[in-house]
Amino acid sequence: MADRVVTLEGTLETLLAEKKYGTLRDVFVTMNASDIAALFDEIEQDKLPRLFRLLPKELAAETFVEMDAQAQELLIQGFSDNELKEVVDELYVDDAADLVEEMPANVVKRILKQADPEMRKMINEILKYPEDSAGSIMTTEYVSLRPNMTVEEAFKRIRRTGIDKETIYTCYITTEDRKLIGFLSIRSLLLADENDVLQDIMEQNVIAVNTLEDQETVVQMFSKYNFIALPVVDAEGRLVGIVTIDDAMDVLEEEVTEDFEKMAGITPSDKPYLRTTVLETFWARTPWLMILMLSATFTSFIIGSFEDSLAAYMALSAFIPMLTGTGGNSGTQSATAIIRSISLREVEFSDLYRVVWKEIRVAVLCGVTLAVCNFAKMMLVDRLLFGNTAISPIVALVICLTLIFTVVCAKTVGCLLPMLADKGGLDPAVMASPFISTIVDALSLLIYFQIARIILHI
Amino acid sequence: MADRVVTLEGTLETLLAEKKYGTLRDVFVTMNASDIAALFDEIEQDKLPRLFRLLPKELAAETFVEMDAQAQELLIQGFSDNELKEVVDELYVDDAADLVEEMPANVVKRILKQADPEMRKMINEILKYPEDSAGSIMTTEYVSLRPNMTVEEAFKRIRRTGIDKETIYTCYITTEDRKLIGFLSIRSLLLADENDVLQDIMEQNVIAVNTLEDQETVVQMFSKYNFIALPVVDAEGRLVGIVTIDDAMDVLEEEVTEDFEKMAGITPSDKPYLRTTVLETFWARTPWLMILMLSATFTSFIIGSFEDSLAAYMALSAFIPMLTGTGGNSGTQSATAIIRSISLREVEFSDLYRVVWKEIRVAVLCGVTLAVCNFAKMMLVDRLLFGNTAISPIVALVICLTLIFTVVCAKTVGCLLPMLADKGGLDPAVMASPFISTIVDALSLLIYFQIARIILHI
Repeated sequence: MADRVVTLEGTLETLLAEKKYGTLRDVFVTMNASDIAALFDEIEQDKLPRLFRLLPKELAAETFVEMDAQAQELLIQGFSDNELKEVVDELYVDDAADLVEEMPANVVKRILKQADPEMRKMINEILKYPEDSAGSIMTTEYVSLRPNMTVEEAFKRIRRTGIDKETIYTCYITTEDRKLIGFLSIRSLLLADENDVLQDIMEQNVIAVNTLEDQETVVQMFSKYNFIALPVVDAEGRLVGIVTIDDAMDVLEEEVTEDFEKMAGITPSDKPYLRTTVLETFWARTPWLMILMLSATFTSFIIGSFEDSLAAYMALSAFIPMLTGTGGNSGTQSATAIIRSISLREVEFSDLYRVVWKEIRVAVLCGVTLAVCNFAKMMLVDRLLFGNTAISPIVALVICLTLIFTVVCAKTVGCLLPMLADKGGLDPAVMASPFISTIVDALSLLIYFQIARIILHI
Repeated sequence: MADRVVTLEGTLETLLAEKKYGTLRDVFVTMNASDIAALFDEIEQDKLPRLFRLLPKELAAETFVEMDAQAQELLIQGFSDNELKEVVDELYVDDAADLVEEMPANVVKRILKQADPEMRKMINEILKYPEDSAGSIMTTEYVSLRPNMTVEEAFKRIRRTGIDKETIYTCYITTEDRKLIGFLSIRSLLLADENDVLQDIMEQNVIAVNTLEDQETVVQMFSKYNFIALPVVDAEGRLVGIVTIDDAMDVLEEEVTEDFEKMAGITPSDKPYLRTTVLETFWARTPWLMILMLSATFTSFIIGSFEDSLAAYMALSAFIPMLTGTGGNSGTQSATAIIRSISLREVEFSDLYRVVWKEIRVAVLCGVTLAVCNFAKMMLVDRLLFGNTAISPIVALVICLTLIFTVVCAKTVGCLLPMLADKGGLDPAVMASPFISTIVDALSLLIYFQIARIILHI
């Protein structure tokens, strides 16, 4: 795929250099807007406006929507007012609202000036909703029908207005005062009799979200109910827009990326990796590293307070990274499993005891298995093979017992923290790997030295 | 949400105990199949069959599809052949194929026996494709039209056959020998003139996937092209099925869960967290922990070989967990950012130099910032405030220089490994946190002791 794009890009640049505009246009019309946009994002900036102008009007708008913000801004800067108007007129309202949100103020001014009053009103409507709310990702272009229409009248209305609607596959039935009372898929309309009245055949059990609902909930509703569009209503139950599934899918990918970032201790960003500057990446990553580094002060204290005993049993210090590492990894496994289950709504706070009890049993099995293998390895490899006599059976015992207790603690902390965070209204994803590791590091050292103290009498 | 479900569940059990079947049925028909299924998954097993039998036929099949495998099996065990046939007849082919894949052999036999021959043939068709391929997630129930049909004839055909098709929103145009040559959305059909001939108005630029294509690619195409259905063709370009967007969304969630699991060193599983047994969870988690624990042998060796010098400068050993921890966290950040970018196709192997160069610059900034803060903290807090005289400025210098080099190494390894893995045909996700941490642990110790050797002359 990547290779093909690169080649095509070269071909297009050659065609452009040779001014073969007709050929270029012929190539473009056979292509999908998303592919053209991907190509344009890669092409040299100064050639972009000339290539873009070759696209037929509708394809131009479709391509424009798919391009990245940087290229969009560049194009708008070069557009005449007329060209800008042509693109804006073809945009769906939700895409126009996204554009307005991403562009700098002077560009926004131009866009709003070129939009017709109706469009401008709808854009402002969407922009007034908080970021990441259902209202902010909806479109106001949907098909609404009246309950007393017949199927024939409904089709007339769809044919008349449908071309400008983002989806016509689900039609919503509203009363005079815009209250949402039912819906009909275009399939049921097609299969119904021409003279049927909508209120007799419509589905009355409408599932809708409130404008202020979090976009994550919207996505969950899509995957739960297998909808292709979800109606958005205001506090009075009036239909104000719909979210379509392609937008929900984009939100899903965005939310997943955010979860990955949070779980790695990175402040989430909207921009793709290669588009962020070094400084932006630096700022997104350093705060967490700093917090975690400073929290590691505890581990230094713990080791420091045990310094004399460590000096007596130097072999013990060689196994600190192995113990803290295994603890960290065990905790990360539990935390990740729980964080993902919470976000898929498979696990909720009422499952706390079941979860903890399961993790403890898994941890004991895991810990004992690891301990037995490690004991064998220390005796056979370290002691026999490499002749490291400092590793006596009793030292190996200390280390292996520590392994068991550390794994149990780590898995318990790993499942508890995300669940408590979720209950407390925090995002469970921040309780992931780096955070858990830092806590488990300190815990495993405390366990280690306590066990050493008891068994080795130091 | 959770609270409401719990309450409803109680109400239903009361109604069932009081044998108010009419009321129960009335409640169910106002509900969505997904909600009923969620409720049924929670209800006491012995009450399930009686409740299920209250559902009208179509709602019963829709609910059945949404239930989890355990409850499905339970229901089928209790079904008469007739009841089973009724449910199977209402299933879409892809859902029936999923069911057959998940049920034990004796249940599968009964299902296939009750399916009509046509359905059985289609199920077997889907089952022959490898797991996770486009063929395995497609449905064979789509609307296909001929190029010489008029719009009016097309609608007649859709009205006649559409009720059994999973989606009618995109119709595919095929030749006599089933070659896919174009498509038409129901919207364009509705807006077209009744006498238009399909081949004149159809979209010829069809994007399709091959039956053997990986399901992950299918999902990427959905999010790239904003389709609601994607045609699946065989090697000869013949249309054999379609994937609908709701199934693509399920695949997306499944793939994301797999990525999370791999990144935490867990062998991926299809089952939700609370459905896996303790032993299954144990087996999914222990192998990676074992590998990582045994690889940590290197860190013991490194520390062991530096034992004498450590005994001379005990303060140094107290900072080992902080250094390896910060290294691990830095590496995890880069690895996560890159793994996610690869899976979103934002970064590919040809970007290697750009990525590494960016990570190095970020790492230097990060490392220096952390080092400066840490130096100040060691001087002011550890030395001045707590009077820990072992932490001399020269020891602090060793630790802070190590921080800088460790962060740079960690971020370089963190971005390199996933990219190399991807290039080598491995899943980049396995190169995540636990794996990177283990490598970075050893690297940071080597750096630490080397710097200590040079500066402290030990």
